[in-house]
Amino acid sequence: MIKVGIIGGTGYTGVELLRLLVAHPEVSLQAVTSRNEAGVAIAEVFPNLRGHTDLHFSAPNETVLDGCDVVFFATPNGTAMEMVQKLLDKGIRVIDLAADFRLKNALEWQRWYGMSHTCPDLLIEAVYGLPEVNREAIRGARLVANPGCYPTAVQLGFLPVLEKGLVDPLHLIADAKSGVSGAGRKAEMQLLLGEAGENFKAYGVSGHRHLPEIRQGLEHFAQGNKVGLTFVPHLTPMIRGIHATLYAQLTDPACDIQAVYEQRYANEPFVDVLPPGSHPETRSVKGANLCRLAIHRPQDGDTVVVLVVIDNLVKGAAGQAVQNMNIMFGLQEDSGLRQIALLP
Amino acid sequence: MIKVGIIGGTGYTGVELLRLLVAHPEVSLQAVTSRNEAGVAIAEVFPNLRGHTDLHFSAPNETVLDGCDVVFFATPNGTAMEMVQKLLDKGIRVIDLAADFRLKNALEWQRWYGMSHTCPDLLIEAVYGLPEVNREAIRGARLVANPGCYPTAVQLGFLPVLEKGLVDPLHLIADAKSGVSGAGRKAEMQLLLGEAGENFKAYGVSGHRHLPEIRQGLEHFAQGNKVGLTFVPHLTPMIRGIHATLYAQLTDPACDIQAVYEQRYANEPFVDVLPPGSHPETRSVKGANLCRLAIHRPQDGDTVVVLVVIDNLVKGAAGQAVQNMNIMFGLQEDSGLRQIALLP
Amino acid sequence: MIKVGIIGGTGYTGVELLRLLVAHPEVSLQAVTSRNEAGVAIAEVFPNLRGHTDLHFSAPNETVLDGCDVVFFATPNGTAMEMVQKLLDKGIRVIDLAADFRLKNALEWQRWYGMSHTCPDLLIEAVYGLPEVNREAIRGARLVANPGCYPTAVQLGFLPVLEKGLVDPLHLIADAKSGVSGAGRKAEMQLLLGEAGENFKAYGVSGHRHLPEIRQGLEHFAQGNKVGLTFVPHLTPMIRGIHATLYAQLTDPACDIQAVYEQRYANEPFVDVLPPGSHPETRSVKGANLCRLAIHRPQDGDTVVVLVVIDNLVKGAAGQAVQNMNIMFGLQEDSGLRQIALLP
Amino acid sequence: MIKVGIIGGTGYTGVELLRLLVAHPEVSLQAVTSRNEAGVAIAEVFPNLRGHTDLHFSAPNETVLDGCDVVFFATPNGTAMEMVQKLLDKGIRVIDLAADFRLKNALEWQRWYGMSHTCPDLLIEAVYGLPEVNREAIRGARLVANPGCYPTAVQLGFLPVLEKGLVDPLHLIADAKSGVSGAGRKAEMQLLLGEAGENFKAYGVSGHRHLPEIRQGLEHFAQGNKVGLTFVPHLTPMIRGIHATLYAQLTDPACDIQAVYEQRYANEPFVDVLPPGSHPETRSVKGANLCRLAIHRPQDGDTVVVLVVIDNLVKGAAGQAVQNMNIMFGLQEDSGLRQIALLP
Repeated sequence: MIKVGIIGGTGYTGVELLRLLVAHPEVSLQAVTSRNEAGVAIAEVFPNLRGHTDLHFSAPNETVLDGCDVVFFATPNGTAMEMVQKLLDKGIRVIDLAADFRLKNALEWQRWYGMSHTCPDLLIEAVYGLPEVNREAIRGARLVANPGCYPTAVQLGFLPVLEKGLVDPLHLIADAKSGVSGAGRKAEMQLLLGEAGENFKAYGVSGHRHLPEIRQGLEHFAQGNKVGLTFVPHLTPMIRGIHATLYAQLTDPACDIQAVYEQRYANEPFVDVLPPGSHPETRSVKGANLCRLAIHRPQDGDTVVVLVVIDNLVKGAAGQAVQNMNIMFGLQEDSGLRQIALLP
Repeated sequence: MIKVGIIGGTGYTGVELLRLLVAHPEVSLQAVTSRNEAGVAIAEVFPNLRGHTDLHFSAPNETVLDGCDVVFFATPNGTAMEMVQKLLDKGIRVIDLAADFRLKNALEWQRWYGMSHTCPDLLIEAVYGLPEVNREAIRGARLVANPGCYPTAVQLGFLPVLEKGLVDPLHLIADAKSGVSGAGRKAEMQLLLGEAGENFKAYGVSGHRHLPEIRQGLEHFAQGNKVGLTFVPHLTPMIRGIHATLYAQLTDPACDIQAVYEQRYANEPFVDVLPPGSHPETRSVKGANLCRLAIHRPQDGDTVVVLVVIDNLVKGAAGQAVQNMNIMFGLQEDSGLRQIALLP
Repeated sequence: MIKVGIIGGTGYTGVELLRLLVAHPEVSLQAVTSRNEAGVAIAEVFPNLRGHTDLHFSAPNETVLDGCDVVFFATPNGTAMEMVQKLLDKGIRVIDLAADFRLKNALEWQRWYGMSHTCPDLLIEAVYGLPEVNREAIRGARLVANPGCYPTAVQLGFLPVLEKGLVDPLHLIADAKSGVSGAGRKAEMQLLLGEAGENFKAYGVSGHRHLPEIRQGLEHFAQGNKVGLTFVPHLTPMIRGIHATLYAQLTDPACDIQAVYEQRYANEPFVDVLPPGSHPETRSVKGANLCRLAIHRPQDGDTVVVLVVIDNLVKGAAGQAVQNMNIMFGLQEDSGLRQIALLP
Repeated sequence: MIKVGIIGGTGYTGVELLRLLVAHPEVSLQAVTSRNEAGVAIAEVFPNLRGHTDLHFSAPNETVLDGCDVVFFATPNGTAMEMVQKLLDKGIRVIDLAADFRLKNALEWQRWYGMSHTCPDLLIEAVYGLPEVNREAIRGARLVANPGCYPTAVQLGFLPVLEKGLVDPLHLIADAKSGVSGAGRKAEMQLLLGEAGENFKAYGVSGHRHLPEIRQGLEHFAQGNKVGLTFVPHLTPMIRGIHATLYAQLTDPACDIQAVYEQRYANEPFVDVLPPGSHPETRSVKGANLCRLAIHRPQDGDTVVVLVVIDNLVKGAAGQAVQNMNIMFGLQEDSGLRQIALLP
């Protein structure tokens, strides 16, 4: 059994991690820390967990996580970078679900997250936890930076054609729609049912924090070619799910794009390429660690349209983190991750 | 492995049964029949099941279910009664998720369901599949009538006080609210998102089909005393979940109602009595085979208020059916039923 | 033109008041105050008003409302009682949409609202602004206490039978369901779409602040007879609308309840008694100043069930306040209040 | 008073037309026909209209609309073209809310709508009812083809830059999201709350019927230059609202795009260009005849992003039809169209 700790388990990624880890056959959950809820039963904050765990939130202190094999950070941005080195020094491996180690460039990080990075050397060491790209590196990693939700969907959608150089990398468009849980469990006015319900809007069009993360990934896929990406996120009136609609210009209109995707993901347990003509639905992955995508070429033109869906809290956060853990510890990659999406 | 067949698997109880049975460690799914979808891959109708089963819907014929140990009916009312006898004759046990065998009185059935019953003798044999009441009888049953969703919530909510004669049985009120999936997967105008969304209404106040089923159960609990029940169902703009708010007049105001409920359900794996002062939420059981309830006595008066939540498709339908199967075949009662509710 | 001011216009009752008053043919809107948003264009906070008003929020100071004929308070509880006397002294009439003047008993107010009342003498003078009961008193009032949303629905539903003594006043039940806007425009965790969406729960079962207000009204209708009321509010996953389901025991089963309601409300412009057998929908009054209700006697028994719907922000708040203003100033009672509900 | 008839008033555009026309100060509603609901009170089908009209649906026959000044068709595609000539012959003007007269090319119409056009000559005469483009022609028109909902949003969004030749017309992208009421009031499985709720998906990516309509308009704006448009519609889990996110490549990066839009729409009563940096919300136009849009150039690049919102049933259907009527009959263009959006 792998001994697991969670730091900051009171948000949506936290409760989703708990749902997955409490039921994981190879995991023993040691401690879940929370500054605000220390001493409170986890099941009191998250009533779905009542009867499934007797753990209480612990105060975050030096020793409560000693003895863990791996610690997940489900904290706000900027928290993990203050604590990771100490954990690593104790031989504890770390998976950070926040953004602290996602960007390789510390200055870029500072620019988008508004604070200077306190351990830029670990930025170099950290492995970006997108298994479909970095599986081998993840296996040996001490520190994994779990990707953001939008970046997971957009990167998996563009990966096959960028790797093979089949599209113009300078004019990529990612029109992404997210349920409100992507914004976290925060008492913010704009996330109220009274504000976000029966409403649809774009946000952050001038620049969203996930933009540099996505761009970094796409440039990596494009073998260092410059990438021009327009990324427009939208808030959609539902709780879970991301739908990314991706547009690119084909450079070789004769190529069989469908086949490219099918081959690229043939052995991926958590990426499902749908048959031609399909329209994936976010509900088809609700609660499941899965990315489904479909490829279109409207009117047989030069524009390829990729439709990508994930559950932002699973393949876009907690599920992918568990997938990374499974890889790091040599478990079956889908151990504890075989849930079927809840439909309806 | 228990060999299982499903008749009529294209509705919401059907897909929920499939979600549970496909992942059940002791079940081998043999066939799922559908008149309309015969030949179509199940995963094409229900995209959440893609990758989890390769089965196609079978045409409903005489032999496709031969060899099954148990067959579930997830059909419209009136279908099972035409087919059950033949299956029983072949030694196949049956769990009917429709209403065909829920009422003991064939005339009452005819009155509420608008057709005469074709096998009233089986009405006598059929065991009403509410494990918290009939566990022993279910164990040996050939034919189980799986309770309706409202009846499950209302009966579990009134059971402890009626059994002990602690309330006036003549003035019971059940004000119940259901998500739209309770009405089934039918293309009906009033179930459109454009009609049922952002809307709340009562329906069937003059008499809902679940009324006689609930009354029959309550009278059984009340040792044959006459029961007066006002049952008002409401449609609430969400997909899954029932919240029943029950009102009764205490006959002995001194009794410790909380203790009565806790003791009654102390050993029930799927009934959770919350601490005093609690307000159960439907989302706390979404996707889980669980009934949570809480007891209140507002202003310490004579009126007891019981708040009950279930997922209408799980403890109110497919989950309870699997629970019954587990009991019938001597499995762990929670085998395949340990899912944690999806929150948020 | 009546000169109108609004104090505290940044909540949901505020924006709804603005929607109604900006379009009211007899109203000239003078000022809208807000401590937090002073100087900001109203249309920036409420984008629906862009193009309909150029007003900016004013800082709340001594003189900004001088010259108004009437001032509406759309403030949190406890604010109006500090300011009303000064306005009255200047000859300005006041309509308070908060709870400060709804209860006649200052001690009761203190008990439920957790602060002592600072002008108990005005409690006596204030007229409870339910036009269907107090129209004449409202006409001459200096200070009107606009009813709460639940109290409006529950009182209008019970009024006819209590007035005529047709039901047992000691065992009344009001099972009420509200959309989330009833809780106000506040950044509270439980009101997030991620928490309140796809979820249904009761709350405040042990005692909600609207209970004493409703009880006071019902006792008034019952000619001082003691009233026993069990009031259970629920949060339903929609934005606007209240559905109250009321239960009472008839004392004279022979009476024609439908006729009683139709006669009582025959001349009421904003109460609509539906034909027998109807089930009013909250969406049928969305955005409209209207209470629709229907009467049932299930199974022809002694229990009468009254189904009542209002839009909590209109007939349950801002619309009723405008109705009161119309009465106070001798305007057509439906002036500015002829909006048709938005459906779908 | 203008005498108005409606043919086929039982859908969502029908009820929205009724909401607007019943309250229109210059309109006298003569008759509303419906084959299925003939004889039924309109308010029985649409409870929001109860108390606002006593009209009953009429059977559609030769004479019921005689004497009307104008008739609106709110019928399925293919109905109006069978009846329009006769009405015109009687001197009755016609506004068709369906697609029958939107495309100038009868073959194109046949290809997309699957039936041959029965009056191609009227295709030539019909005026496309987008007032921002065709106001003068609408004034004198006998027959107006009211634009589709997506086409209204997309055309208004692209119009200013195409007219001035500021973007590459060959690589336009319109990523559009619609609430479910855009699909009409039809009992279709995919529109159930249980299917469309908590779900997001694209549809019709290979070719949606609104594509040729949009393309025809854009080519008109582009002075006959060929237009390459990728149009991807999505279904979003809400009732009303369209959000179109438009992407184009600037040919002159130095131009002041914001100013171009502001000037183009300076005198348009129903198009609102938001300040730079804005993100329009669909709820800001819910129930209002208004198109709001905002212009972005992310990272100051060559890609211009236009965010456009309308209420699909108002500016995207019934409201625009009334606007056209106002123009045709020389009324104030905003007569009966001054509703403020309902927020929240």
